[in-house]
Amino acid sequence: MFESAELNHSISDGKYDREMPKLREALLKAQYDLLKDKSFPVIIIIGGVDGAGKGETVNILNEWMDPRHIVTHAFGEMSDEERERPRMWRYWRALPPKGHIGILFGAWHTDPIVNRVMGKISNVQLALAMEEIVRFERMLVDEGALILKFWFHLSKRVQKKRLRALEADPKTRWRVTDTDWERFKLYDKFRKVSETALRETSTGDAPWTVVEGTDPNYRYLTVGRTLLDALKKRLAGDKPAVTRTAALPKPALDGRTVLSRLNYSKTLDHKIYRRQLEKYQGELNLLSRHKKFRNKSLIIVFEGVDAAGKGGSIRRITGALDARHYNVIPVAAPTEEERAQPYLWRFWRYLPRTGRITIFDRSWYGRVLVERVEKFCSEQDWMRAYHEINDFEAQLVETGDIVLKFWLTITKEEQLRRFREREKTPFKSFKITPEDWRNRKKWNDYERAVCDMIERTSNDRAPWVLVAANDKYSARIMILKTLCERMTAVL
Amino acid sequence: MFESAELNHSISDGKYDREMPKLREALLKAQYDLLKDKSFPVIIIIGGVDGAGKGETVNILNEWMDPRHIVTHAFGEMSDEERERPRMWRYWRALPPKGHIGILFGAWHTDPIVNRVMGKISNVQLALAMEEIVRFERMLVDEGALILKFWFHLSKRVQKKRLRALEADPKTRWRVTDTDWERFKLYDKFRKVSETALRETSTGDAPWTVVEGTDPNYRYLTVGRTLLDALKKRLAGDKPAVTRTAALPKPALDGRTVLSRLNYSKTLDHKIYRRQLEKYQGELNLLSRHKKFRNKSLIIVFEGVDAAGKGGSIRRITGALDARHYNVIPVAAPTEEERAQPYLWRFWRYLPRTGRITIFDRSWYGRVLVERVEKFCSEQDWMRAYHEINDFEAQLVETGDIVLKFWLTITKEEQLRRFREREKTPFKSFKITPEDWRNRKKWNDYERAVCDMIERTSNDRAPWVLVAANDKYSARIMILKTLCERMTAVL
Repeated sequence: MFESAELNHSISDGKYDREMPKLREALLKAQYDLLKDKSFPVIIIIGGVDGAGKGETVNILNEWMDPRHIVTHAFGEMSDEERERPRMWRYWRALPPKGHIGILFGAWHTDPIVNRVMGKISNVQLALAMEEIVRFERMLVDEGALILKFWFHLSKRVQKKRLRALEADPKTRWRVTDTDWERFKLYDKFRKVSETALRETSTGDAPWTVVEGTDPNYRYLTVGRTLLDALKKRLAGDKPAVTRTAALPKPALDGRTVLSRLNYSKTLDHKIYRRQLEKYQGELNLLSRHKKFRNKSLIIVFEGVDAAGKGGSIRRITGALDARHYNVIPVAAPTEEERAQPYLWRFWRYLPRTGRITIFDRSWYGRVLVERVEKFCSEQDWMRAYHEINDFEAQLVETGDIVLKFWLTITKEEQLRRFREREKTPFKSFKITPEDWRNRKKWNDYERAVCDMIERTSNDRAPWVLVAANDKYSARIMILKTLCERMTAVL
Repeated sequence: MFESAELNHSISDGKYDREMPKLREALLKAQYDLLKDKSFPVIIIIGGVDGAGKGETVNILNEWMDPRHIVTHAFGEMSDEERERPRMWRYWRALPPKGHIGILFGAWHTDPIVNRVMGKISNVQLALAMEEIVRFERMLVDEGALILKFWFHLSKRVQKKRLRALEADPKTRWRVTDTDWERFKLYDKFRKVSETALRETSTGDAPWTVVEGTDPNYRYLTVGRTLLDALKKRLAGDKPAVTRTAALPKPALDGRTVLSRLNYSKTLDHKIYRRQLEKYQGELNLLSRHKKFRNKSLIIVFEGVDAAGKGGSIRRITGALDARHYNVIPVAAPTEEERAQPYLWRFWRYLPRTGRITIFDRSWYGRVLVERVEKFCSEQDWMRAYHEINDFEAQLVETGDIVLKFWLTITKEEQLRRFREREKTPFKSFKITPEDWRNRKKWNDYERAVCDMIERTSNDRAPWVLVAANDKYSARIMILKTLCERMTAVL
């Protein structure tokens, strides 16, 4: 992989001076076209060996184009707010919005590579990390992003010379640190691990461009042209095909589903309800103040058919908690800033710090429910959402978050009864809109979508809990009890 | 101030049970009206002595109303991202958007009070801090916020009893920490300082309600009713009058202004320009890597007439810097999320961490320039903006940020020449729009606005630098030189 970047590639000053102005002008034009077009973000990832001119190249890109519409992020030490979230959170918050260029300096590839070189993770763990990255970048591409990845390479001999030269010059001495020499000692290992990592993450959608870092002219023109070509191609409408996913299984012939098997006739006496409510709320309160919970966070998702009692259930949970520890996120239409980002961005931004609880009232599952049924997104989009969501939740669980998802369901008759009651009660009438009646007409479509969703996204680590909620009391107790059991099991 | 909160106020359970359901229903209704109305945010500030039921009351509010549209923030230890910004940054990021209720637990009043009690600041410093708070809250109110401030009080005797009782009960023991007892020893001092602080920050726009914390029934009903009354009044259209500000002075009779006295005929030979550019860019680069700069940040504002060369000047600055250290924020129309917040919010969110540089290409001065001239906001709004901006910048400077503001100006003839040139050059034609021509017709109005702006917002700590930019070379050098001098002076 690196052989072709050890050929002492170089470009004469004369040729550079002839080509550069044209390239620069074309890049600037493409940047403004992108800004006007506003339909996709450009993500430029910069990696590679020390001293190979990564920083200089990024500076040149900022010089050639309009720096006002480029955001450059370097990922150094994590801040404490970053440490308390899943590993990828810091990258999500750095993603450029549509129409903009984001340069990510040492992004998601860096840690796994360095950790492998340092022996902190095994080859298998490295492979898994790379696989995760491939899926993540695939998601970005499917969401419309144009990703360009540049790896700056130097042969061992040249790197040594380069570091020595930088050190010799008083003006550049500051750039060579002990860490650089420490890392140089690991050159061979670093090379080997990088090669594996690059090979495994060089996909058709987001390939690596290996750039020999010896000659600045060569370096700048290579990166500039690669970027220009990709930008122009994309602006001309050449979009990569969205990931194919396997077709969904047809519903079972006998019509039996996980929903039809629920027991909707369970009831709970009010007196027992009051007693159990107090019991489980007390338990939940203690659990939320558990010592071990200080390093974890709890994410609860509420989804369900209209009028199934999500709001009431959420209030029974928050009623047990200290308002300083939780946050309820009602999910409605995305804002303009959210629409300029990948679909999951608007949920990532609300992930809690450790010791805290976030309750999503509706969630990322909107993609495979309402957006699927109402055709707000293409079939490709909601089909790929299943594994995107699974990847997302896997990261939460891996970080130590407790993830629980409740599906609240009532029978069609019970829904009708509740709709009518809402219409009659002045105090509740704001809760019933023509949209609710429209959704009701699509009951079967929704049911199909729900069954597919449960089939594809329920798993041990982030299970769906199906709650037959015709009887509010028993539903609420079931929810609180499940929550307590889950937290007890994890803590 | 606290005498009337030491009268053992209490409300019988019977009365409470009769009143509470009505209050609760009315509050919920008012909350939904607020959500529909979406024209103002509600900020509830909670302060007071330990054990007076602050937490319980906040929980009750969340129970009575819909917790999905309330955000509760408790301000504990600062995160490192917060420590690297001005003191008020953490509060700005916690402000609720219009239509929502934000409960701030121990907000901006807390630190000054605690610091005075601990003897860390003097009485004068406390008074200054309170004055700052009054101005901050005034700004929030002028921006439309409804602010409610509750101070929970207990007499010394009752607090002691309360802490003992909490400690005696195994279920509540965790709530009493050593810090609570440490603080109790300072009760008298705390009472005295709080009284001063409350008196000085109890304004007509945002008065304190002192709530005796002894009896829960009394506490909950008092807070609930106060909130309900304020919400209903405001929803009914009763908005406080916006702050009056002193009239602006008329322009001088002889027509002489700071702008007319600039020397527009300065020029700089290209060769000298190249040499000086290199010199100052090199200097700026070294300064940006200065050890002392790691604890500071640099905020540069660019404003100027159309076609005065802001973009080119910014590129000469960024060209000297490492892309990892700066960020350019082009200021255009606010996004939907920004429109739901006070005017300055969209600038606060981009304040840099330490060791970093943020360049604003147009800025918060839009309020007193384009918004004033084009009448996008009321006279009251831009009139009060002068001192709001001064307060904002004072906070930046106080934090150790270096603030520099450049006003780039060219003569009317030179602007015409540049507009025409832009129209003729295909590469630059995107830079000239009908709006530019429209603005040009209002040249005199803008000039008047600029003179007022400089008069009112230029000061030693955050000075305006007026740059006559008919000659681009001399303008750029002047900007770079000023920047270097300022940084050298501060570092």
